[in-house]
Amino acid sequence: MPHQLLVIGGDAAGMSAASQARRLKGPDELAITVVERGDTTSYAACGIPYWVAGLVEERAALIARRAEVFRDRQQIDVHLHHEATAIDTDARTVTVRDLDAGTLRTFGYDDLLIATGAQQVPPPVDGLDTPGVSAVQTLPDGQRILDALATRAPRRAVVVGGGYIGLEMAEALQLRGLDVTLLDLAEQPMTTLEPELGRRIADAMRTMGIDLRLGTPLTGVVPGDDGWVRAVTTPDGEIPADLVVLGTGVRPRTALAAEAGVPVGPSGGIVTDDRQATPVTGVWAAGDCAETTHRVSGARVSFALGTVANKQGRIAGLNLGGAEGRFPGVLGTAVTKVHELEIARTGLSLREAEAAGLRATVSHIDAGTRAHYYPDSAEMTVLLVVEEPTGRLLGGQIVGGPGAGKRIDVLAAALWNGMHVEDLIQMDLAYAPPFSPVWDPVLTAARRAAG
Amino acid sequence: MPHQLLVIGGDAAGMSAASQARRLKGPDELAITVVERGDTTSYAACGIPYWVAGLVEERAALIARRAEVFRDRQQIDVHLHHEATAIDTDARTVTVRDLDAGTLRTFGYDDLLIATGAQQVPPPVDGLDTPGVSAVQTLPDGQRILDALATRAPRRAVVVGGGYIGLEMAEALQLRGLDVTLLDLAEQPMTTLEPELGRRIADAMRTMGIDLRLGTPLTGVVPGDDGWVRAVTTPDGEIPADLVVLGTGVRPRTALAAEAGVPVGPSGGIVTDDRQATPVTGVWAAGDCAETTHRVSGARVSFALGTVANKQGRIAGLNLGGAEGRFPGVLGTAVTKVHELEIARTGLSLREAEAAGLRATVSHIDAGTRAHYYPDSAEMTVLLVVEEPTGRLLGGQIVGGPGAGKRIDVLAAALWNGMHVEDLIQMDLAYAPPFSPVWDPVLTAARRAAG
Repeated sequence: MPHQLLVIGGDAAGMSAASQARRLKGPDELAITVVERGDTTSYAACGIPYWVAGLVEERAALIARRAEVFRDRQQIDVHLHHEATAIDTDARTVTVRDLDAGTLRTFGYDDLLIATGAQQVPPPVDGLDTPGVSAVQTLPDGQRILDALATRAPRRAVVVGGGYIGLEMAEALQLRGLDVTLLDLAEQPMTTLEPELGRRIADAMRTMGIDLRLGTPLTGVVPGDDGWVRAVTTPDGEIPADLVVLGTGVRPRTALAAEAGVPVGPSGGIVTDDRQATPVTGVWAAGDCAETTHRVSGARVSFALGTVANKQGRIAGLNLGGAEGRFPGVLGTAVTKVHELEIARTGLSLREAEAAGLRATVSHIDAGTRAHYYPDSAEMTVLLVVEEPTGRLLGGQIVGGPGAGKRIDVLAAALWNGMHVEDLIQMDLAYAPPFSPVWDPVLTAARRAAG
Repeated sequence: MPHQLLVIGGDAAGMSAASQARRLKGPDELAITVVERGDTTSYAACGIPYWVAGLVEERAALIARRAEVFRDRQQIDVHLHHEATAIDTDARTVTVRDLDAGTLRTFGYDDLLIATGAQQVPPPVDGLDTPGVSAVQTLPDGQRILDALATRAPRRAVVVGGGYIGLEMAEALQLRGLDVTLLDLAEQPMTTLEPELGRRIADAMRTMGIDLRLGTPLTGVVPGDDGWVRAVTTPDGEIPADLVVLGTGVRPRTALAAEAGVPVGPSGGIVTDDRQATPVTGVWAAGDCAETTHRVSGARVSFALGTVANKQGRIAGLNLGGAEGRFPGVLGTAVTKVHELEIARTGLSLREAEAAGLRATVSHIDAGTRAHYYPDSAEMTVLLVVEEPTGRLLGGQIVGGPGAGKRIDVLAAALWNGMHVEDLIQMDLAYAPPFSPVWDPVLTAARRAAG
């Protein structure tokens, strides 16, 4: 009888692991079973705002690979609408509810991979189940918003939360012709960036016509006579809303693991080593539900990022398939856009650096994305967080027009390799007038930071 | 009396050095004199094709800083139309011809920086002085082509050379409405890229309507009855041409240095250490005329790249100003575009790797610049040159649509730090659907290369 690998969760981490393990071991050696409570595998949650915006026409386009393909091509036995409800790490079994039939089944395993992802952290108010209020985490969430757009022709939307998903949904709903108000508890949108960049983002969003309410918590949801949402409340009064979208962040989904005695770390994620093994024999974890190491601070952190989930899944799959893989940690690199404004960050912010006990300074420069004389050069700002007095790069942030955001990858590569700004100044980056000033903005930022 | 710094050449390297030295030492300590045979300082030679194309309206836009500004703000004494004709390294003097007056002057120096740049290597044929035949190296070259466009309304252009400048001029002249034929001696355009990418570039150029003649040398220039060029000749026959543009490459301009006994290395550039000092006491060199070290092969090389010239000038200026600076070498990173096709490279090609005694393999992947479901994702190819059996990255090349080219910087950063493909796979690069697939194409290329 083959070795039994059971995967809880058919998202990017779980399916990457299953595929990678299968590439190393055939079905005679390794039986792979996946249980997924939703109705699809491997969907691109990051694509939901663009589907809502109408930029992506078909829901199917967001599904990287369907369950049938995993079954037919890779002999990976995927059970959709099956929710794991309990893990017995001594008996090596998982209790699973068939959500269609309502019945319980028990699956045995030799190795178990927990890839339960993240769950929304809703604002602490009542009424979030009012029709017209939706998260943006799953394909059904996206479908619910699209249905509302189609059937109710909403005119006014309130987006709660000024992080990645909040900005993307504000753009999406503006593209659908709605008036958008965005509420954020904080005094700036994108709190993972420094305040000087937060101000620029806020100014740009207001110029785009987004009604930005900072320092403003959601305090309630007001249904109309027909039960559908009519407004939200804040300490500054009511805001009319035909649609409310929650983009208030996520945390690792770990209840199942914790109940089974699998340790959860202070960051909120499941504890793993760099092979993605938990401290419990035969139990592994990968993706948004798992902790990882921040390469700059050395701290254990949890990030809900598709890139990390895919990479951790691959490493888990290598080890589960009998090969060797070690996950080297993350930088928290991320990028987004709201209309023409691109926003990116990597590494530590000043606050994160200080929390890690590092002495740091911040500096930034303004530059163009192209040679100053070349048409359509966009403004961009590059901010660096640098350790004092060593000059070691700790983090980088970019805000700017088209072509600005992906330059964060150069800073990510510099951070990955522990570079100092004095060395970064000299780096041999590509130049031609349509692509960059002769001193690339990243290098100019390093020159400024080096003083 | 202050220390005397004399700079031969007012291009990027010379003026960067002069400015950097001035920032460290005031005029009481350091007198700085620049002699430049042309009529301007610090112009962007890389911008000339875009000026010819009409994308840049004013010649003045290409001049980063005028001689008067150096004089007035930095007390740098710039002599335009002054050509250095001889260096006496024992007497520490330079003979300079005033090209307007026709007179000779002698300038003394304590330190001399040679920043004579590069010179065109024309094809070995007669008739290159025929009116209507022009290089694209200087602002007067660009003006000559613009004058021809304005006064002669040419319909057919022949561009000689399929490197960066050749492709950029082919684009520029197409944008001006001309029919363009491009001749190259080699069997592919962009010979610094592997043949599999050269073929893609050739196919794309033909689709753009460029009449590409590969393996085809220029053998002659045929003037018309009025003396203006009428055609060029090749082994395959005559090609009608109202305008001929030479983009056949450059080499370091070193005659002046060599005649003065300043050593020139096998790469053709002036020998320097990593402070930009030549072996001759008090003589320094920087920019296109100087050698540098390739960081991957360790070989001494000469590159005519504005980025390198600026960086070497800065290092020379640091040392000439009494500070410390060491130039860490180059990767040969470069990028260009021809219409929508972006082309970039860094590090060693397979041939260069083999010439450096390294055992290497090449692999490439095709990917999209964005998530597959996001609108306007462009095709791109990432090719890696990898050392066997170590897996060390030796070089990278990218060809693709808008958004592809500048991603070469990630490979440049990886090369700069001596990364291996197994480590590159894991690197934490930015992802969002408008910016990248979840596995960035650079990482997918690393996965392919790792096998």
